[in-house]
Amino acid sequence: MIISQENIQKVLYELFVKYNFTKEKAQLLASVFTESTLDGVSSHGINRVPLFIEHIEKGVIKIDAEAEKVASFGSIERWDGNFGPGIINATKCTNRAIALAKQHGMGLVALRNTNHWMRGGTYGKQAAEANCMSILFTNTKPNMPPWGGKDSRIGNNPFVVSIPREKGNVILDMAISQFSFGKINDYRLKGEKLPFHGGWDDNDELSNDPDKILSKERGLPIGYWKGSALSMVLDMLATILSAGNSTYRISSKDIETGISQVFICIYPEVFNDSELQEKLMDEIIDYTHNVEPINSEDKIYYPGERSSQTRTKNLKDGIFVNESIWEKIMLLSKK
Amino acid sequence: MIISQENIQKVLYELFVKYNFTKEKAQLLASVFTESTLDGVSSHGINRVPLFIEHIEKGVIKIDAEAEKVASFGSIERWDGNFGPGIINATKCTNRAIALAKQHGMGLVALRNTNHWMRGGTYGKQAAEANCMSILFTNTKPNMPPWGGKDSRIGNNPFVVSIPREKGNVILDMAISQFSFGKINDYRLKGEKLPFHGGWDDNDELSNDPDKILSKERGLPIGYWKGSALSMVLDMLATILSAGNSTYRISSKDIETGISQVFICIYPEVFNDSELQEKLMDEIIDYTHNVEPINSEDKIYYPGERSSQTRTKNLKDGIFVNESIWEKIMLLSKK
Repeated sequence: MIISQENIQKVLYELFVKYNFTKEKAQLLASVFTESTLDGVSSHGINRVPLFIEHIEKGVIKIDAEAEKVASFGSIERWDGNFGPGIINATKCTNRAIALAKQHGMGLVALRNTNHWMRGGTYGKQAAEANCMSILFTNTKPNMPPWGGKDSRIGNNPFVVSIPREKGNVILDMAISQFSFGKINDYRLKGEKLPFHGGWDDNDELSNDPDKILSKERGLPIGYWKGSALSMVLDMLATILSAGNSTYRISSKDIETGISQVFICIYPEVFNDSELQEKLMDEIIDYTHNVEPINSEDKIYYPGERSSQTRTKNLKDGIFVNESIWEKIMLLSKK
Repeated sequence: MIISQENIQKVLYELFVKYNFTKEKAQLLASVFTESTLDGVSSHGINRVPLFIEHIEKGVIKIDAEAEKVASFGSIERWDGNFGPGIINATKCTNRAIALAKQHGMGLVALRNTNHWMRGGTYGKQAAEANCMSILFTNTKPNMPPWGGKDSRIGNNPFVVSIPREKGNVILDMAISQFSFGKINDYRLKGEKLPFHGGWDDNDELSNDPDKILSKERGLPIGYWKGSALSMVLDMLATILSAGNSTYRISSKDIETGISQVFICIYPEVFNDSELQEKLMDEIIDYTHNVEPINSEDKIYYPGERSSQTRTKNLKDGIFVNESIWEKIMLLSKK
């Protein structure tokens, strides 16, 4: 079904107010869930709302909790999220990293005891709109085996890099897994195989068969051994800098919570050459854009370009929302 | 042939002095080339020395050039490498990022107009030995197609993350390509196929056949579209922050030179909980180490563990050096 941005925003805002969030927080939560859906990332937008409410009801996400600073030194700070909503904590810490960057050239905020930030790109965009570059990452529960191992003991640890640009911000938002389990399930529902290996089957063989991969959740890191190592070091950085939970410690809980995140922002305007920066960005984008495609009908994109196009389309035509998700939200709203 | 560390160091030092480097610089260069070889990374150690000398003779690498600071703001600085040797420039900028980190909690140095830093892990180790974490990256000439494109227009942009640890530093040092062309050539020489896709063949199909991939240098990014995007944003960060050459601009030169790099260091000791940090690191490493391997004879490693083991072995047994490389170095030494 097609729903307008205004309507999604309104329904979610009222839902969150009903669940005892302050008006300000309900507004922020509704806005982030709606914006992600508008950008075409429903999987971390509206589709996540029922699970978000479930985690509130279970007490995993604390409605009233606020992230607070626990230590600081120069341009780096350590915050405790006190198990508040991931969106609210991550928004606050991104803002703090932006402020540090504007003061010191760059800033880093490490956040512990937070919850899922939903779409990581949200905060990359937030930084870019404040004219900052950002490097952001989070750890997760284990969902991929370390290279060569049988069991999932590393996280897919989403990683975000953003660069502000007048003609369209560049925003990379990727998990370290080759495919998310949500995406693998989409292939399963369509009765299709994955285009590349996506995880291990029950015989510990790499597989592109959604059914076989989904029988146990053992995802494949990007670049095999390389992504396995990258996942480990991101977990180490987030854990040590926040003195928070590692993927190992998160694994002991039934529900993924109390995770650790890092927000690095850099303010390139301190170098007073914005025009040159814009020119250099355009050169890189033009050079990659203008490559001859392997399939003549294909187009090469820069990171973030397609979600920006989806946004433009959805603003015009309205947003597609899965009916059963919308029904669940309606039910929660009337509960 | 097997050569001792002392002998490699001495021969290289004398070679570099002969090529008019100051004693101090000759010492540093010899030491970095030797250490990389000792750690088992001959491809970016002794095997690179003849090409390094060739680039000096061609004037691509300037013997007397020194990196100098061109702009700074708080915890970030921009340096110009003036086309000096990549090793000397990168060592200096890592030291500067370490100093900034100790002063501000973290520091960033962006370096332009430099040359190949050889083994990126060298600087990750340098940071770790100064009790700093590091995130370091460099751009390169184009050697991989952006995802969906025919021609190589993005770089394999090596990426380093290091974390200091008493029981052994963690050092990830990886290019964004699935396999280096050097590694692909090793498979070719052994008459073997790659274990996974490594690039494109002449029909624009992904291939694991070294001969087919090496006919045109079109490497495969880790994680297909994901590594393609990651390569782009690393190039953007390095180019914008240094106001230096992007992969696009580097592509216009016959020899890869004038590249751009970023050195980020973080000093976690500002939080005064080194014991806790050590414990958290050990937990992560134990958890991943102790996973049951798919092949019972395999062992799971943390990033940097194997090169540290190779080092220990080579210190005991001497270092294997390819004979033809050693002969070339002998010839250059007598020239």
